[in-house]
Amino acid sequence: MKIVVDAMGGDHAPGVVVEGSVMAAREFGIEIILVGRADDIQRELARHSTEGLAISIVPASEVIEMHEHTLAVKEKKDNSLSVGMRLIKDGKADAFMSAGNSGAVMAAALFGVGRIRGIDRPALCTQYPASLKPAVLIDLGANADPKPQNLLQSALMGSLYAECVLGIQKPRVAIVSNGEEADKGSMLVRDTYKLLQSSSLNFVGNVEGKDIPKGVTDVIVTDGFTGNVIVKLTEGIVSFLVKFLKQSLTGGLLNKIGLALLIPGAILMLPGIVLLLPSIGRLRKRMDYREYGAAPLLGVDGVVLIAHGRSDARAIRGAIRSTRQAVEGNIVNAIKAGLAAAAAASTTSPAG
Amino acid sequence: MKIVVDAMGGDHAPGVVVEGSVMAAREFGIEIILVGRADDIQRELARHSTEGLAISIVPASEVIEMHEHTLAVKEKKDNSLSVGMRLIKDGKADAFMSAGNSGAVMAAALFGVGRIRGIDRPALCTQYPASLKPAVLIDLGANADPKPQNLLQSALMGSLYAECVLGIQKPRVAIVSNGEEADKGSMLVRDTYKLLQSSSLNFVGNVEGKDIPKGVTDVIVTDGFTGNVIVKLTEGIVSFLVKFLKQSLTGGLLNKIGLALLIPGAILMLPGIVLLLPSIGRLRKRMDYREYGAAPLLGVDGVVLIAHGRSDARAIRGAIRSTRQAVEGNIVNAIKAGLAAAAAASTTSPAG
Repeated sequence: MKIVVDAMGGDHAPGVVVEGSVMAAREFGIEIILVGRADDIQRELARHSTEGLAISIVPASEVIEMHEHTLAVKEKKDNSLSVGMRLIKDGKADAFMSAGNSGAVMAAALFGVGRIRGIDRPALCTQYPASLKPAVLIDLGANADPKPQNLLQSALMGSLYAECVLGIQKPRVAIVSNGEEADKGSMLVRDTYKLLQSSSLNFVGNVEGKDIPKGVTDVIVTDGFTGNVIVKLTEGIVSFLVKFLKQSLTGGLLNKIGLALLIPGAILMLPGIVLLLPSIGRLRKRMDYREYGAAPLLGVDGVVLIAHGRSDARAIRGAIRSTRQAVEGNIVNAIKAGLAAAAAASTTSPAG
Repeated sequence: MKIVVDAMGGDHAPGVVVEGSVMAAREFGIEIILVGRADDIQRELARHSTEGLAISIVPASEVIEMHEHTLAVKEKKDNSLSVGMRLIKDGKADAFMSAGNSGAVMAAALFGVGRIRGIDRPALCTQYPASLKPAVLIDLGANADPKPQNLLQSALMGSLYAECVLGIQKPRVAIVSNGEEADKGSMLVRDTYKLLQSSSLNFVGNVEGKDIPKGVTDVIVTDGFTGNVIVKLTEGIVSFLVKFLKQSLTGGLLNKIGLALLIPGAILMLPGIVLLLPSIGRLRKRMDYREYGAAPLLGVDGVVLIAHGRSDARAIRGAIRSTRQAVEGNIVNAIKAGLAAAAAASTTSPAG
């Protein structure tokens, strides 16, 4: 398997991108093509031992910065995103991954590999972490103003991703709403509800904000605006709670005395704490975007994933692992087959 | 001050509503008018010592159930919501509070007391709890499909609420978006951004999900759909984290041994823990809807607040406390004056 990695994408590129790619090439035994400024990549590669690893460089002289307009991919012809997309378009690699400007990655994917026929708008998906049973959340922000038809397509793609990549049988699909009942929701949600209900998907109805973390569904469908708010708010709340507890515990004089009194007991507790550490680690790991990897851009005619802009080397390694998973799950072909099946079903049965 | 309380509203009415009202009448020294089925209220009142408390009953023979359609307030003429609204409309009381069907409360308020002239759509607001500095979040769900003009009015009302009721000078106002930059957002958000920018409000731009808990703004403006998702997701994540930690800590054999080893140390730590308890309590209190009270419905021509349907007696007491605060802040007149000032400003200065 060959994965193209955008060496220039992300807040700490190219250093951490090259480092994470070296880790991934070694641990997962896959081929990595680093695309970007050859000199910069070369210099970073020299810091690591890469003997025996299948890492190559494809040069691209230009870089799309994190806050540039998405259309910069048209102006800077030799940018790393567009060069990378060409590699997968031409069949020279199986997938593309970038931690760069996500709007620009989407634009480069649309121009470079195009949409799958039958998909009007691609959508970004992720595994939502703050849930007792992780669920696929789609769309994270590719499309802030979708039509019901776009959300139906997102639902289909999210369901196929859950099935083919995550191995969930007959995934339960729900749409985010402001109430459980079918008549609750914005106009967009109510119209989409009807489409989902008459589709071949395993549609289980609305899911409210408070139930998202309960793992009551396998696929959470929403527009890109709300999806973005959900994922980022989750990130924000988790760090708020940690900070608030710290602040509360170390604030007043009484607390300081309280903490001092804890010390002898804490020493006695050390062996127990050591045994419990893996559990706390599991929570941190589950909440840590560096562990749960990159977000697949579904609906484009190639495997394209976008990682967090703040990715460090470990996160890049995780992102490459999810890219490999998406290739193994054969997600592009699964979506094409799913669309064909859905089209056939709607021809043969007049009502849902 | 006289506050009308809907004795029939909420999952545990009338028991907890009457109990909470008795607590509030005693602690806050205010008059409470309980509206609803007189026999039921009488029976509940008999369980408490109400000597010297200013609690009266106004009978209403019908009840709007939690899942009834909002228009039931039209069909059931003698329902507790409509009877209560009439009391404030007729100047017989200063405010109305219900933990009942929130759609029905809004409908009863619109029919019963009407909108403030200049406000097209009322909006529900709350103090968002999961933030280092609590902020006013508006709209929580009164209007799932607002227009930019509605959001501008919500922003104005939220800002006045922050100023008059919470005492925040020149409140910073931000709009929820899927990115910090001015060009990020759904069409609704981008159009509203321009209106907010040329308004007289202290508009500070977009706020992303991850920054909502950071307390970077005093008023968080959003549509009722997104606002509902934000508040309920916050509730869901907090309970998820508690559950996940519990599950992780008590799961495997190693954990059980670890926990057993903690016991002797824990005993030694008791005095310290006792001193730290108030801090943990503060976090629980901050996250607890029973403490942060009821949500004011702004834009109607009367003080109307809606409490959580799951309210217990303590939550009803908290809701009555926020109702008193809203009356003291003179929020309805503040909104009228604010609208007049905004209209005058837009007449005298042609651009913002």
